[in-house]
Amino acid sequence: MTQSIAIIGASGYTGAELIRLIATHPSFEIKALAANSKAGQSMAQVFPHLRQLDLPTLVTWEQIDFSEIDLCFCALPHKTSQEVISKLPKSLKIVDLSADFRLRDPAAYKTWYGNDHAAVDMQKEAVYGLTEFYRDEIAGARLVAGTGCNAATGQYILRPLITAGVIDLDDIILDLQCGVSGAGRSLKENLLHAELSEGTNAYAVGSTHRHLGEFDQEFSKLAGREVKIQFTPHLGPFNRGILATGYVKGEAEAINMALEAAYANEPFVEVLPFGETPSTHHVRGSNFVHIGVVADRLPGRTIVVAALDNLCKGSSGQALQNANLMLGVEETAGLMLAPCFP
Amino acid sequence: MTQSIAIIGASGYTGAELIRLIATHPSFEIKALAANSKAGQSMAQVFPHLRQLDLPTLVTWEQIDFSEIDLCFCALPHKTSQEVISKLPKSLKIVDLSADFRLRDPAAYKTWYGNDHAAVDMQKEAVYGLTEFYRDEIAGARLVAGTGCNAATGQYILRPLITAGVIDLDDIILDLQCGVSGAGRSLKENLLHAELSEGTNAYAVGSTHRHLGEFDQEFSKLAGREVKIQFTPHLGPFNRGILATGYVKGEAEAINMALEAAYANEPFVEVLPFGETPSTHHVRGSNFVHIGVVADRLPGRTIVVAALDNLCKGSSGQALQNANLMLGVEETAGLMLAPCFP
Amino acid sequence: MTQSIAIIGASGYTGAELIRLIATHPSFEIKALAANSKAGQSMAQVFPHLRQLDLPTLVTWEQIDFSEIDLCFCALPHKTSQEVISKLPKSLKIVDLSADFRLRDPAAYKTWYGNDHAAVDMQKEAVYGLTEFYRDEIAGARLVAGTGCNAATGQYILRPLITAGVIDLDDIILDLQCGVSGAGRSLKENLLHAELSEGTNAYAVGSTHRHLGEFDQEFSKLAGREVKIQFTPHLGPFNRGILATGYVKGEAEAINMALEAAYANEPFVEVLPFGETPSTHHVRGSNFVHIGVVADRLPGRTIVVAALDNLCKGSSGQALQNANLMLGVEETAGLMLAPCFP
Amino acid sequence: MTQSIAIIGASGYTGAELIRLIATHPSFEIKALAANSKAGQSMAQVFPHLRQLDLPTLVTWEQIDFSEIDLCFCALPHKTSQEVISKLPKSLKIVDLSADFRLRDPAAYKTWYGNDHAAVDMQKEAVYGLTEFYRDEIAGARLVAGTGCNAATGQYILRPLITAGVIDLDDIILDLQCGVSGAGRSLKENLLHAELSEGTNAYAVGSTHRHLGEFDQEFSKLAGREVKIQFTPHLGPFNRGILATGYVKGEAEAINMALEAAYANEPFVEVLPFGETPSTHHVRGSNFVHIGVVADRLPGRTIVVAALDNLCKGSSGQALQNANLMLGVEETAGLMLAPCFP
Repeated sequence: MTQSIAIIGASGYTGAELIRLIATHPSFEIKALAANSKAGQSMAQVFPHLRQLDLPTLVTWEQIDFSEIDLCFCALPHKTSQEVISKLPKSLKIVDLSADFRLRDPAAYKTWYGNDHAAVDMQKEAVYGLTEFYRDEIAGARLVAGTGCNAATGQYILRPLITAGVIDLDDIILDLQCGVSGAGRSLKENLLHAELSEGTNAYAVGSTHRHLGEFDQEFSKLAGREVKIQFTPHLGPFNRGILATGYVKGEAEAINMALEAAYANEPFVEVLPFGETPSTHHVRGSNFVHIGVVADRLPGRTIVVAALDNLCKGSSGQALQNANLMLGVEETAGLMLAPCFP
Repeated sequence: MTQSIAIIGASGYTGAELIRLIATHPSFEIKALAANSKAGQSMAQVFPHLRQLDLPTLVTWEQIDFSEIDLCFCALPHKTSQEVISKLPKSLKIVDLSADFRLRDPAAYKTWYGNDHAAVDMQKEAVYGLTEFYRDEIAGARLVAGTGCNAATGQYILRPLITAGVIDLDDIILDLQCGVSGAGRSLKENLLHAELSEGTNAYAVGSTHRHLGEFDQEFSKLAGREVKIQFTPHLGPFNRGILATGYVKGEAEAINMALEAAYANEPFVEVLPFGETPSTHHVRGSNFVHIGVVADRLPGRTIVVAALDNLCKGSSGQALQNANLMLGVEETAGLMLAPCFP
Repeated sequence: MTQSIAIIGASGYTGAELIRLIATHPSFEIKALAANSKAGQSMAQVFPHLRQLDLPTLVTWEQIDFSEIDLCFCALPHKTSQEVISKLPKSLKIVDLSADFRLRDPAAYKTWYGNDHAAVDMQKEAVYGLTEFYRDEIAGARLVAGTGCNAATGQYILRPLITAGVIDLDDIILDLQCGVSGAGRSLKENLLHAELSEGTNAYAVGSTHRHLGEFDQEFSKLAGREVKIQFTPHLGPFNRGILATGYVKGEAEAINMALEAAYANEPFVEVLPFGETPSTHHVRGSNFVHIGVVADRLPGRTIVVAALDNLCKGSSGQALQNANLMLGVEETAGLMLAPCFP
Repeated sequence: MTQSIAIIGASGYTGAELIRLIATHPSFEIKALAANSKAGQSMAQVFPHLRQLDLPTLVTWEQIDFSEIDLCFCALPHKTSQEVISKLPKSLKIVDLSADFRLRDPAAYKTWYGNDHAAVDMQKEAVYGLTEFYRDEIAGARLVAGTGCNAATGQYILRPLITAGVIDLDDIILDLQCGVSGAGRSLKENLLHAELSEGTNAYAVGSTHRHLGEFDQEFSKLAGREVKIQFTPHLGPFNRGILATGYVKGEAEAINMALEAAYANEPFVEVLPFGETPSTHHVRGSNFVHIGVVADRLPGRTIVVAALDNLCKGSSGQALQNANLMLGVEETAGLMLAPCFP
């Protein structure tokens, strides 16, 4: 049996990544691709690396006949996404990859994004899409909100530690290095090769990055009290990958055990042998997460490092994993591609 | 039905690429992995990006029980390969990825490689592995010699033009840019990140690169006369990809038609719309070849540009494509992965 | 004695490079910096790497008091440059880094740039700024036109060969790889890190690049007959550097001798030992040119490879070298910085 | 007046960087270059980017006539350095770039480096070479020990804060990203372009990096009590640059004021406007340090980020700055080169 898929926002990197993954999916078929600013073009024009695929021509999302679509991925920019989704059929299954439905609290949404939400009802209906921790809700959901890529990486480190009660909740630092594709295909000076290659810099310093809204929401809910972490992202000269280095107070062995227990049966999360740490090189192009734990020389302090591919596990791969659940398909379908190294 | 596969030389990049591809192959199962210098180690130690796969521990090739192997890939260095292959069971189907069996003439072999061949009989038996042009011979072969990655790229441009008689055979220039993975995982100063990134240089200048042995053999056979081209490779600061820019004398339209005719039914070779040229970015991590033709401002001169991934279509992907043919499996099995962009 | 310098168009890469070089110049002092779209900002805001320098605040070019300026560099985009320069004082010494005054023939200008020239008189007055070959004219000039960076690289290879009569003028191919800074700081999709890193592609294929206008003009003048070469640039994933691989018909020894003779006393042009070829890595950030000659295996064919830094010797370094001549200063002043490797 | 300079260990990156800098030094003249494994070769063979310089041929260090040398830079590997330096004339002024004389306590040395020190007397004589904080001692020293590049970066952030008493000494984290040239020109698999480009990873996790020996020594001395920080370096895909992100507990304004006060008169250390943070892109190839301070959203927590070029300010630039002091030359001589961007 084949499931019919639509993608709105197919001209960005997460849209292209969805298509790349679905290309080897055993039962998904792409029936419609929308990108309003490029409607009428072929995907080969917009993304020549997809030239060999037999794909529908780009249309506007208004032109899609959703009656024949089983699930729609929405890979639009923030704000645009909520406006479009609020106009889609209410029975349509949707996986949204934008930030619009990640925060359940309208006030928190306004704090981090600066505007009132245009679809508060749907905001409350949406299930948070961190698959490993919301699997059952996702399977029964109509609307799933893909997580932030940094937010996903940090949560793979911290959720099991908060749940297991093995770390000090008042002294958590996440230091991240992010690949440039996370910023999308937008034309910004700092994303030019000449500006970005051969060096690195921090951004959103002072714990001002919007993904902190997700951390606050999820960690506080998990802990049953307010948890506020520090988080500094850096922009690195590579296209795919997030490396999160977490500094926590707690015993390394207990932390390692909590992670091993949490991920023992997870197909995509690998806890490395105690004392080893991961590299983004080894997850590039894949849906895998690698996590490793090391004890600091200072007693009671531990470093946990996680690596994933921001475009895949951090965004489109997660979205496909959720779609599989929502459509009753094998969760790993289309997602077992090995990383592309070197 | 499952085919049992062995890989000798699994600790190099082409070995790892074979494993990456076979990971999604519907019927191949890896039964044995050999790397004599790393026997006893797990693949996760040698290539952490393959950690999630359930792979056999590395052994020496002498430890493999070939009676249970349907096909063996040999990804050893040159010279070592002929020594090992000459000791393998004579009934074993083998795809060799080294240079050892590419040249059929022992004298030509000695000219380009500097030593006498250690297995002249097998050298004569081997079928040249450029799939699109030796498909039938490969399907019936016991030993297939994978082509050089530069040699493959150049032949995708030139073979149809020589066959169709649309270019001057005495004035052919191939200018190539090659990604660094083509040099393998060897420890050489010029392959260090600090030496190679952020710049480029030519090497083997003066048409001294060994892949010219393949060009000479194949083009002369095809033309029925001696054909000697000029060929300059450059080492570029990227890991995967070969871009070949061919300068030929002939009419662009006729050249484009010859390429379109040659590749009309090929699943992996895409001829771009006339006047467009390809980029290595758009074939990275895949088995696809993109070719484009442009007329020069000077009448009667034409530029043909081809792009492929040296590790995949230029080596391990080609090897798998040939193995599929040799084992009677669908030729494209395990090879339809879309390129990994960005 | 100090010379007072103004730079118009200081917010682009060539403007920044001029400032970098002048920072160590013994007698030049920057009196005014103009960038109309960023007037009022400090250079530290526009280019933080120049923060430590005591530089004038950016103004509009109309605000500059040219009566106190000894020489003005004009680093504006094409077309804008001719409009601005035509309004500057007629006595002002100017080095223009744009394409606007490179072609002496108004018809050729229109052919390559598509519009009529707005300052034909000045177009005729301008001296072509390839220092080593127009040294005397430059020393006496009021307006010097900086060359194209690709055009400079190609001419370093070919001018001595044409002059010495050692190559076939009807069969010349230049294959170039260009770093991305040559495209400037403009916001274009193909210049994004995610699009450009980790791969390469040709552009302006078919000998349609505008720098061919310069080649045609200069080579034909030099040869006393029409000379039209083939020229394909490629965009490589590095910021600085041009590597030109020239394919010519002629004897390698004679070619090498012609180059050695031409550059024997040149402070910035290094002819490598016969048989060696250069790398852009080894000229990065400097005003040096490296050239090397190799005989092809085919008799009578020769490869000549040249490397320079497009922003420095290909543009701003050349401009400073010319300014030194125009102001009677030591030609090498401010330009002897060693390349920045690795 | 000219000072005569020798460099031992001229075939590594720090040796080459010294030569690059001295090339524009107004009064230093390189009289001897030693590299025992490459004695007899020219620098053009070892480092083609220095081809244009008129440099002495490489010799063994035993061949140098030190009676005519005013100051000797020693850029040898650790352990080798102490052996060689102990055999040099006792009156010779030496700037050592290795780790051998950084730690004053023989026990600490053994802890971090694993062996007994071979020249304990000289170890005690050596002055720690962090110029801004040991200026007077350096000016009068015979032997100066260059600091670790990471150690320098961290100290530029933390020394003024410890001295001013504005941070909690028991909760300091330094998270660093380091360019690959810091690892030298050694042939290691993880330094290959194919392994290192396009991703990142942590190393020496758990505060096990040797530069912690320097932090412990210097911070404890400064504070008058034991201070032990946490420190995680990451290897980034760029050649030059260190970005240190420091997490401290203290008020951001007080921290910013302490840094501004400490560096108000320093020619090479720039404190950015409060709230801005630096980028390694903007110090590349230069002797400058950029530091910026941001208040975290959590009260009482502050992030301080510093950027420098590990090869220049972190090693060879620092060494030259110290040599200038030791020889009574202007401290900034040869060091005012603007960064090379892009």
